[in-house]
Amino acid sequence: MSAGAGGEALLTDLYQLTMLQAYLEHGYTGTAAFEFFSRKLPPERRFLLAAGLEQVLDYLEHLRFTEPELDWIRRSGRFSRDFADWLEGFRFTGEVHAMPEGTPFFAHEPVLRVVAPLPQAQLVESRIINLLHFSILVASKAARCVLAAPGKLLVDFGMRRSHGAEAALLAARACYLAGFAGTSTVLAGMRWGIPVYGTMAHSFVQAHDDEALAFEHFARSHPTSAVLLIDTYDTEAGAEKVVRLAPRLREAGIAVRGVRIDSGDLAEHARRVRGILDRGGLRDAIVFASGNLDEHELARLVAAGAPIDGFGVGTRLDTSADVPYLDCAYKLMEYAGRPRRKRSEGKATWPGRKQVYRERDAEGRLLRDVLTVEGDGQPGEPLLAPVMREGRRLAPPEPLEAIRERVARELAALPPALRALEPAAEHFACEISPALRALTESVDRG
Amino acid sequence: MSAGAGGEALLTDLYQLTMLQAYLEHGYTGTAAFEFFSRKLPPERRFLLAAGLEQVLDYLEHLRFTEPELDWIRRSGRFSRDFADWLEGFRFTGEVHAMPEGTPFFAHEPVLRVVAPLPQAQLVESRIINLLHFSILVASKAARCVLAAPGKLLVDFGMRRSHGAEAALLAARACYLAGFAGTSTVLAGMRWGIPVYGTMAHSFVQAHDDEALAFEHFARSHPTSAVLLIDTYDTEAGAEKVVRLAPRLREAGIAVRGVRIDSGDLAEHARRVRGILDRGGLRDAIVFASGNLDEHELARLVAAGAPIDGFGVGTRLDTSADVPYLDCAYKLMEYAGRPRRKRSEGKATWPGRKQVYRERDAEGRLLRDVLTVEGDGQPGEPLLAPVMREGRRLAPPEPLEAIRERVARELAALPPALRALEPAAEHFACEISPALRALTESVDRG
Repeated sequence: MSAGAGGEALLTDLYQLTMLQAYLEHGYTGTAAFEFFSRKLPPERRFLLAAGLEQVLDYLEHLRFTEPELDWIRRSGRFSRDFADWLEGFRFTGEVHAMPEGTPFFAHEPVLRVVAPLPQAQLVESRIINLLHFSILVASKAARCVLAAPGKLLVDFGMRRSHGAEAALLAARACYLAGFAGTSTVLAGMRWGIPVYGTMAHSFVQAHDDEALAFEHFARSHPTSAVLLIDTYDTEAGAEKVVRLAPRLREAGIAVRGVRIDSGDLAEHARRVRGILDRGGLRDAIVFASGNLDEHELARLVAAGAPIDGFGVGTRLDTSADVPYLDCAYKLMEYAGRPRRKRSEGKATWPGRKQVYRERDAEGRLLRDVLTVEGDGQPGEPLLAPVMREGRRLAPPEPLEAIRERVARELAALPPALRALEPAAEHFACEISPALRALTESVDRG
Repeated sequence: MSAGAGGEALLTDLYQLTMLQAYLEHGYTGTAAFEFFSRKLPPERRFLLAAGLEQVLDYLEHLRFTEPELDWIRRSGRFSRDFADWLEGFRFTGEVHAMPEGTPFFAHEPVLRVVAPLPQAQLVESRIINLLHFSILVASKAARCVLAAPGKLLVDFGMRRSHGAEAALLAARACYLAGFAGTSTVLAGMRWGIPVYGTMAHSFVQAHDDEALAFEHFARSHPTSAVLLIDTYDTEAGAEKVVRLAPRLREAGIAVRGVRIDSGDLAEHARRVRGILDRGGLRDAIVFASGNLDEHELARLVAAGAPIDGFGVGTRLDTSADVPYLDCAYKLMEYAGRPRRKRSEGKATWPGRKQVYRERDAEGRLLRDVLTVEGDGQPGEPLLAPVMREGRRLAPPEPLEAIRERVARELAALPPALRALEPAAEHFACEISPALRALTESVDRG
């Protein structure tokens, strides 16, 4: 269901394989440098958050052609026998530089650079984009949710409408590293140790003839953690039933942890429900809300002072519904020692191996980014660092907790213009160094 | 990466497990009927296309809790030992009714019904939605592309910006069953026998010092299938190079299959490129176009008479960018012989086990759908049929070719109002039978 399981060498575009055969047959096996970057941010995103590096490194380390894959290639009639034999021994032996996960970045800034023999660096394009693009997409939107609802308990609820299994898992991870408290997706908890949250569904209530009985059964089965869903029939009536039930549960040593509201005017229901719970002696019970939430709805509910302690954010987050894809690419920047550049209309790139230097003010707040050629020292901190050499990681996977701390620090260091949620009329842009401009001109002159 | 590999029992929401334990502890193991349906179609979709049934059946047949999963559950501290033991023996033993893949459907019409002991039918909710939702999403948009560009060679190019691995695979399958010629995703070809297409990337051209040499190398390595990408530097100049190269290749027995354009004004470039190819004696070479395409852009290019033979449709299709998620649900409709209904604000459902009858006119064109209770005969053809009993399929997987034929037939049978691409002011709506209305009233009276 995700990277690292093997058997995904053919999870690529056909043209990678046809190009590979041509590269090999004509001796194009020199060193290539490819970089992954976003050409342009949409107005709805003032920054993007680097994410998915761990999955890319895992993919590169474990990339092999399995027997069934080689067999399919041999029987396809599209490739030479020599080529299939070459694939059999394929290993990624290149090097990777990358921004650490959780780093905010902007248009034209490379998030990742692969340097390897051209056939290797080419083959991995499709899956690298597939992995990085989606994790960045969800992490960037999740970070906006975190900015919109500071101090609230945020939980990823999006598994069911994520685009398939891997999207659900990667979304859970991306939300967590962006600052969410956890996810409802159990497998993400098992795989990465992400805290798992859950309440109950309407069907549980509906399966009972009596709503109060449903609440009681659920609380007795989960005496320390029950969050009861109260909107199946009438939200306030549901809250009253919880209050009436509480003393009997208390006698059995059971404290209702909270209630969930999933429909209607969440702010208004939350206010009424909070009142009912408080008057009923359930001051410690939390109010949890869900249903069509995104960063804008969170900001609206927070601004309205709705007494909601936590939010389940699902579909719109895990599909990044307002921006379901990013304009991003993995492009050849150098081959055999010579910088390269694509000049297609509207899709031109800055050539060569590049580095981003980030300058901060005395309080650590982001001031400016400079995009330049590698080796051209600039003030500030270089954002890309080596993470893989000769196909092997230079360090064990970074703990998610460390990434979460980086994100918290980086979000706090964003200037107000980058933290704002409304669409941007103008975007923060990295400065292009004189050295990079000079290189570009020299490439264009050929 | 997708259903059927096992080890995905925990690919579910935590609340499914907490509810399960409560169901078991309080004896709620009676027979439940759940149905999957869409509450409401967005204006951008005049119909939806059933898809993903095969993946659901595969999931249900192979659903097991693996040792690592059981171990995680036991160590989580959230569940009783009895519950973990029960999960160890878990098998899906229920029955499934469904619309065949490739059937157009509308709001409130059940696509799939699961009837099983409540804990079983509940547990599978999250993954069933996850699988059906996405396949329906992409198949429905792909069908619009097919309607927009009749007779054109359509190829799914979306892998790289699909949301993860499984999305890429399921999108390739959904596009193919909707009528696409194939996909660029190699693994989808290996897994399902879907025809695989590919051209070349800009990096191939850039790695060469000379564009014409890149074309020649590629064509020599792929003498029968080379589609050359001509827009890396200047589209028309690229076409001229192909024309100049053709005679030398012809001497070696190589015919250029075609060219691809990936940027700029595709209609205008295609016209000029077609002229260059024709004047250069390459009348058999096809013009293939890609880059930010969707059904509207296809319709515009077709209406403009652009001489384009085929289209690679990618990101906007595989992410269903204009409608990245559907309002759909899997809801409890009956428990222990009694119909159930959710009445939450804006989310009310029609209760009971239901059937859809579709009436057609003499030419086979869709006339009306009637939603009624199961067993209430109506004119027309019932759309839901049994596909699984006692946890086993009633028939082998339906061949994709058969589904493609159904889709072709069904798209041809849609009335013009349902074939139109522009947003719908009003949607086609199934009629609600008197029997279903009566049942609903009796449920509300309790």
